Amino acid sequence: MAQQKLRKQETLAMRKRLIGQSCRLFYSDDPVKIVRARGQYLFDENNQRYLDCISNVHHVGHCHPKITEAAAAQMDLLNTNSRFLHDNIVLYADRLAASLPEKLCVFYFVNSGSEANDLALRLAQQFTQHQDVIVVDHAYHGHLMSLIDISPYKFRKLAGQKEWVHVAPLPDTYRGIYRETHPNPGQAYADTVKDLIEDVHKKGRKICAFFAESLPSVGGQIILPQGYSAKVAEYVHSAGGVYVADEVQTGFGRVGSHFWAFQLQGEDFCPDIVTLGKPMGNGHPLACVATTKEIADAFTANGVEYFNTFGGNPVSCAIGLAVLDVIKEEDLRGNAMTVGAHLKDLLTKLQTRHQMIGDVRGVGLFVGLELVKDREQRTPATECAALVVKRLKEEDRIFVSTDGPWESVLKFKPPLCFSMEDAELVAQCIDRILTAAATENINLPNNTCINCKREQK
Amino acid sequence: MAQQKLRKQETLAMRKRLIGQSCRLFYSDDPVKIVRARGQYLFDENNQRYLDCISNVHHVGHCHPKITEAAAAQMDLLNTNSRFLHDNIVLYADRLAASLPEKLCVFYFVNSGSEANDLALRLAQQFTQHQDVIVVDHAYHGHLMSLIDISPYKFRKLAGQKEWVHVAPLPDTYRGIYRETHPNPGQAYADTVKDLIEDVHKKGRKICAFFAESLPSVGGQIILPQGYSAKVAEYVHSAGGVYVADEVQTGFGRVGSHFWAFQLQGEDFCPDIVTLGKPMGNGHPLACVATTKEIADAFTANGVEYFNTFGGNPVSCAIGLAVLDVIKEEDLRGNAMTVGAHLKDLLTKLQTRHQMIGDVRGVGLFVGLELVKDREQRTPATECAALVVKRLKEEDRIFVSTDGPWESVLKFKPPLCFSMEDAELVAQCIDRILTAAATENINLPNNTCINCKREQK
Repeated sequence: MAQQKLRKQETLAMRKRLIGQSCRLFYSDDPVKIVRARGQYLFDENNQRYLDCISNVHHVGHCHPKITEAAAAQMDLLNTNSRFLHDNIVLYADRLAASLPEKLCVFYFVNSGSEANDLALRLAQQFTQHQDVIVVDHAYHGHLMSLIDISPYKFRKLAGQKEWVHVAPLPDTYRGIYRETHPNPGQAYADTVKDLIEDVHKKGRKICAFFAESLPSVGGQIILPQGYSAKVAEYVHSAGGVYVADEVQTGFGRVGSHFWAFQLQGEDFCPDIVTLGKPMGNGHPLACVATTKEIADAFTANGVEYFNTFGGNPVSCAIGLAVLDVIKEEDLRGNAMTVGAHLKDLLTKLQTRHQMIGDVRGVGLFVGLELVKDREQRTPATECAALVVKRLKEEDRIFVSTDGPWESVLKFKPPLCFSMEDAELVAQCIDRILTAAATENINLPNNTCINCKREQK
Repeated sequence: MAQQKLRKQETLAMRKRLIGQSCRLFYSDDPVKIVRARGQYLFDENNQRYLDCISNVHHVGHCHPKITEAAAAQMDLLNTNSRFLHDNIVLYADRLAASLPEKLCVFYFVNSGSEANDLALRLAQQFTQHQDVIVVDHAYHGHLMSLIDISPYKFRKLAGQKEWVHVAPLPDTYRGIYRETHPNPGQAYADTVKDLIEDVHKKGRKICAFFAESLPSVGGQIILPQGYSAKVAEYVHSAGGVYVADEVQTGFGRVGSHFWAFQLQGEDFCPDIVTLGKPMGNGHPLACVATTKEIADAFTANGVEYFNTFGGNPVSCAIGLAVLDVIKEEDLRGNAMTVGAHLKDLLTKLQTRHQMIGDVRGVGLFVGLELVKDREQRTPATECAALVVKRLKEEDRIFVSTDGPWESVLKFKPPLCFSMEDAELVAQCIDRILTAAATENINLPNNTCINCKREQK
């Protein structure tokens, strides 16, 4: 197959003409054309290699031959819908069940994390017969209309907040209302949810769900403080609601020590609904909702069929099974733990030399490096973060991007085959760029949160 | 690859345990396990062959080798997201643009018809800054929360009708309020939309969109009367709204004479937004929204990115391109026209012998056969239709299913490689079964519409 059919300028011109401009390009000033990929490396039309620190979807590595093989073999055999019996869907569900707490034993297969979160919301509403949803600040749960409603990251820029949606503070112990010096930030942040529930009840409304990523991503690669989820679940259950853990970005061993990021919150915590997505099919459109028998039964009891045309088809499930196999065979969870720890360690060492590094946080290969203008005020260094991203691309051919309300957090969510050497290269390059930036004395005005227009002082 | 890993009873038991029961099986009393497929044929675990009259998704035939080849080659090369430049997405959009009227020139790629319809609704609301939507009765536009709201087929069984949703009569000239004897049913049905718009305006509300399948499917394989869409578009445009044509079930040459079903309404009609889905990837999760530059620009102007993780990836687009190639190379549109006409002709001949056949309608390989208890009252023969479906499966190994508010319409939406012999076999088998049914004197009570609980007299 020809790797390139059009010259880059022609591709770009056609893209501008034919694809909605709301679909943005990375590095929009100088976008990159990628024609092939392998493992953690992407190659442009001139065969220049780029190290990929951001493709969390391509979980076991780009174009893994075992995934391609499984897909092609099943495509050649059968790809019907799930109204016929097939082994793949049940074998896959069985494997997922084995990775989850026992009570999460019923599955619905869909095509995207967004479809999964939309269905999770329907399940929660049907089960509780309540409407109100609590989300954490800056959260993003998907591009569908129902999910924009529960995503402060989006609704603040669009239609605004619905009366049935309530926003809890982001449990960010670096920048949030309770910080690393607080004796028990998990309890303190959980109590903000408790207070919200009380406010909701005072309005005569009822709690349907608490909906949160197990590690808030767009929020800035946040690690939830210990004890938070169990306490929130307790409060939400008391109010007759359910806890929905959005694992679309964080599942399938990325955190290394556990297969699911919600498990970082301890064995006494189990969500009522978990949504899975991005890495699940290594790029193939595949996602899922896992829930309890009680919630699934309540959904069945409405008497209405749920049919998802492509969801759970034999090809999607064959790919899903192959992804699970590769994670295990190549011990990618182990690799995420070792390499992630090394990367965090290297970045933490950089922090001793660079005043601009305000915080380094992460678990496994989910790592954030927060840049600040001054360590005391923790003023977000948005422009500096953008500069690092630009220079890493141009000078080092490394793809990194930013997250967080002020786009001041460099995020690392690479394919899990990321190596020790990759981690070392990234740290060296950031070191060099931050050294240069300090020399150039980058000094910029105060920032405004791009999500909620609040100013950071 | 082993075609079967579990015995059928074991698959069924695991399915009951692990998959949400809202995800229903075909022939739930005696479900079928399918292990392989080719063209228009499906094979069960005992290598029994079934003729497939219902898999409209597997448009160019099950497991077409050219589709598998294109998918595998691209999966081996690259499968990133659309934030990088790539030739496939622009070449594919360009090919789709060439098949559509010139003004439909901007594309958004997504993973399912539901995602496409949700985005269409967002586009329409953003462009018009209005909220209210008119849909036709019994319509189904997808499984997402936003789409249940605009699908009478679903919302009547679930949350009920929202104040911003308005239901126009289904333009069904066999069973609707204006029938085949009306001098101008297209105008008459369009005027019902005009009346609705006036009602909406009287309430101080504003029309965002008229949203309809180009051939209402769940509604009972309905062929819109000539002139309907152009008139509706005129009324909707006057009210400041847009016309959304849902081509998820009907696009890509199924109707034979045209590539898109909305084109059946004549050259003076062009929708403002068209959604594509099911057949687009021949089973691969791929869908799309096509719209005008003005609508796309209004969406861009909100300043918010639209990112769909898997939408428009190089593998999905390679598959989409291969599907277009096969449709052309194998002249599947021509085949849909010829074989569809033959099937309709054969079924129409059966009508002369079987009083139970109330109506035969269709274009290309989108055909409906409506069964009635008596031709004058047109009482739906729901149980008889179910009997035909059951016997076709058990006695003839033919998969057909029913649609329409009373599930009294046998629907034929086979892969486009369906042959003249297949059409003849189906007609013969239906002939035999209806003859037997008449002898057995199937006489059943009045029916209730499964969607809206109205009784048919």
